[in-house]
Amino acid sequence: MLVLSITEANYFPKMKITTDEKDDFLYHQVAERLGQQIENNTLKAGDKLISLRALSREQGISLSTAYKAFIELENKGYVEARPKSGYFVRYKPARRLKKQTFPHFPSERAEIDVDEMIRQVYRTLSGDGMVRLSLAVPPVELIPVAKLNKALMEAVRNSPESCTNYDEIPGNLNLRKQIARYAFNWGGNVTADEIITTHGCMEAVAFCLKAVTEPGDTIAIESPVYFGIFNVIKILGLKVFEVPSDPQEGPDIDFLEKALDSVPIKACLFVTNFSNPTGALMPDNRKKQLVEMLAAREIPMIEDDIYGEMYFGKSRPKTCKSFDKKGLVMLCSSVSKTLAPGYRVGWCIPGKFWDKVISNKITQTVSSATPTHAAIGIFFETGRYDLHMRNLRKALHTQSLRYIQAVTEHFPPDTQISRPQGGYVLWIELNTKINAFELFEAAILQNVSIAPGQIFSTDARFTNYIRISFGAPFTTEIDAGLKRLGALIKSLEDLSE
Amino acid sequence: MLVLSITEANYFPKMKITTDEKDDFLYHQVAERLGQQIENNTLKAGDKLISLRALSREQGISLSTAYKAFIELENKGYVEARPKSGYFVRYKPARRLKKQTFPHFPSERAEIDVDEMIRQVYRTLSGDGMVRLSLAVPPVELIPVAKLNKALMEAVRNSPESCTNYDEIPGNLNLRKQIARYAFNWGGNVTADEIITTHGCMEAVAFCLKAVTEPGDTIAIESPVYFGIFNVIKILGLKVFEVPSDPQEGPDIDFLEKALDSVPIKACLFVTNFSNPTGALMPDNRKKQLVEMLAAREIPMIEDDIYGEMYFGKSRPKTCKSFDKKGLVMLCSSVSKTLAPGYRVGWCIPGKFWDKVISNKITQTVSSATPTHAAIGIFFETGRYDLHMRNLRKALHTQSLRYIQAVTEHFPPDTQISRPQGGYVLWIELNTKINAFELFEAAILQNVSIAPGQIFSTDARFTNYIRISFGAPFTTEIDAGLKRLGALIKSLEDLSE
Repeated sequence: MLVLSITEANYFPKMKITTDEKDDFLYHQVAERLGQQIENNTLKAGDKLISLRALSREQGISLSTAYKAFIELENKGYVEARPKSGYFVRYKPARRLKKQTFPHFPSERAEIDVDEMIRQVYRTLSGDGMVRLSLAVPPVELIPVAKLNKALMEAVRNSPESCTNYDEIPGNLNLRKQIARYAFNWGGNVTADEIITTHGCMEAVAFCLKAVTEPGDTIAIESPVYFGIFNVIKILGLKVFEVPSDPQEGPDIDFLEKALDSVPIKACLFVTNFSNPTGALMPDNRKKQLVEMLAAREIPMIEDDIYGEMYFGKSRPKTCKSFDKKGLVMLCSSVSKTLAPGYRVGWCIPGKFWDKVISNKITQTVSSATPTHAAIGIFFETGRYDLHMRNLRKALHTQSLRYIQAVTEHFPPDTQISRPQGGYVLWIELNTKINAFELFEAAILQNVSIAPGQIFSTDARFTNYIRISFGAPFTTEIDAGLKRLGALIKSLEDLSE
Repeated sequence: MLVLSITEANYFPKMKITTDEKDDFLYHQVAERLGQQIENNTLKAGDKLISLRALSREQGISLSTAYKAFIELENKGYVEARPKSGYFVRYKPARRLKKQTFPHFPSERAEIDVDEMIRQVYRTLSGDGMVRLSLAVPPVELIPVAKLNKALMEAVRNSPESCTNYDEIPGNLNLRKQIARYAFNWGGNVTADEIITTHGCMEAVAFCLKAVTEPGDTIAIESPVYFGIFNVIKILGLKVFEVPSDPQEGPDIDFLEKALDSVPIKACLFVTNFSNPTGALMPDNRKKQLVEMLAAREIPMIEDDIYGEMYFGKSRPKTCKSFDKKGLVMLCSSVSKTLAPGYRVGWCIPGKFWDKVISNKITQTVSSATPTHAAIGIFFETGRYDLHMRNLRKALHTQSLRYIQAVTEHFPPDTQISRPQGGYVLWIELNTKINAFELFEAAILQNVSIAPGQIFSTDARFTNYIRISFGAPFTTEIDAGLKRLGALIKSLEDLSE
């Protein structure tokens, strides 16, 4: 008998379907009562538990709360799930998990909300002399600005209307042709007609999400995740089912598969390559597995591949889109992380949802910024992007190692550092005594700007994590900044002794 | 005793709070039953009617349905509203309206939805030899492209990072300074710090709406209105209360004031100067009246002033923002209608909601397109915009007269044409036999592209209206196109004899 278990998952799933705080207590109460029934043999080993829906109905609780109660019982070893059959009382109850190595605890009470934290992090970007480790953007030192300017001039010169007018609705044709050409590198086989350009990757994600959901629908996302996604989700009126993400392999597919049987997930949204903030790279075989799992259920997936080109290994990782046979995967990307965030050039390949996405674009932004989109098309076409990316990947790989070395050197010995195989960022676990947002505030006073873990979840979890960007070439200033940060962490640890 | 009456309004208000089609019948049934009670003297002249909320509760209908029922009774002369007191049975019932002169009838059954109509209108834009009367954008002939290119080059040269990086979150500083300077022309007194730049005007409107509403809230908009607004509203999960708009003076303020007493309107969104599609210009005294009316109730207003600079008269019309003392008016605009839609340069002055709007910008688009925003800043600063606008206004005024003349000449004699005092578009009422979307489809086959009236309401009303842009300089091709269109209208009229 196949028994799926999430005891290996080593993290407590966070189900954020409503923002109702009471739910967090409710599921615990329900789990406790069911646990007592098992303890006192009212429910016996092998007994089938009440179904999720029935529990939800009878107790007047949401499906998500019911689900959380079952997960708690499972974590405590009371019950086990059998695929498509439901939950059963285990033969050996009372088995307990050992200490979680990748905790997802919410902060007890966030004094300021996540939005306000994000605002504060952004406000610190423009100070003079600030060592900016908080923002994951390509530093100007690594950008071939002269060549990019040249492409912009060419774009304006080549356009009969000097790029002043709206472009074609799907986007600049040459740019779309080039994106189609690059798709070959990740195993894609697409034409320009399948591509729609956008104002950066976030807009692409928003258009795709909107194409496959209605307000009130639930979508699955990874946790932790880039905070920009929360707001899009909020605007679209969506509910969120958070899938724990491992810093090495990304979202837990098995966990997701189990949830799909009981939670009405309408779409998935994952960053499959070098996710932000963990840097996780989903192995290609898991991508394939994920695509097939979703295809069997006709569930669309939005794949944010914004970091896909920034691999440190020998070849570009594939995408979920590479394995997509049904047009259910909607790939989104941009040049904001590799070349010029200021140009606001992004795109999506929305598969069978093309019509809906184009309709969203027409009615929301009408058109992308014509000059910059045409310029990136030329930059791609002339091979300048290939050359640039080769240099950028090499530089980032070297920088990642230098930053890791410095963090290892300057931070307390119990610090855990991610080992990204691409991208821009290190995800750093500090001693649980540290409150990352307090650390952020203290670091600003010492001219170091970091991204506190709290901003990567809706409810300020990851309180003892920070994200550090290694985008800027490593310098003595940065080394000094990391040293100050390390000293600060130590002193905060000492303070809380 | 002051009795507000909307019998002068001459149009039937459309209350689109839910998309529930049944509501349209429900309110009618409720009104009929109440009417019978008045007819058979169960309710006597002078009696106070049940309150809106009580009616809604007792009949299990929505507030909007209850409101519609009362309006129907009022239109039929059964009841009258007394401010803050409710509805009372009239002393002289059975007075009826004469024929509506500005009808707002919904189409009986739209065969395709408004979204699909919009898509089709946009798809016809790129055909060769097409006489494009459907899109309200500045034609390249009227754009000083060489000077604009120069500004773009200067922008890139002046930027230490060649405009590749994100700009300041509120937007390019020089651009914001220039927008503040121009505010003087409409009687505004704002500083750069109060301004936030956006990816065109539509994004500004979306940010502002989001800042002052929650999903489920009701906002007041004018009808007919630019279709782009519907989608933003839909995305934000808002409900809509449509205020009839007169082609001369714009939204009916008195109608709105009455509604404010009974409908929970959270915010208003109006195009006050040369609205699209009617071309209406709200007189300055009515702007003042509107601002004061909303201020007394602390209701925020989003003012879309995208056409404000395109006046044909001696001076620029004021804005509602000019009269705003409480920071409740959020002015939105862009250069998409005056200079370069492809540049995607817009902005808003969100008054007391600045913090919320900046937060929306941070989390949604992060930054505007840096090169184009910097370029427009330079274009403003160097006085090139002033010169351009003087020429553009003169050209558009002349064009408007030429187009009106041609339409008068070529269209059937019962055609009614708006007389805009600014902007880009003519709003044309055809014989009620004409279905504008059918006309659109037939006209495409004759290489003429128009905007059918249906796309300017959520439920495909304005079936016998079309919008024609006079943005393109008048030529013999355009004259011939209008002639073909006129002939087509005549033949469609004959067909339906």
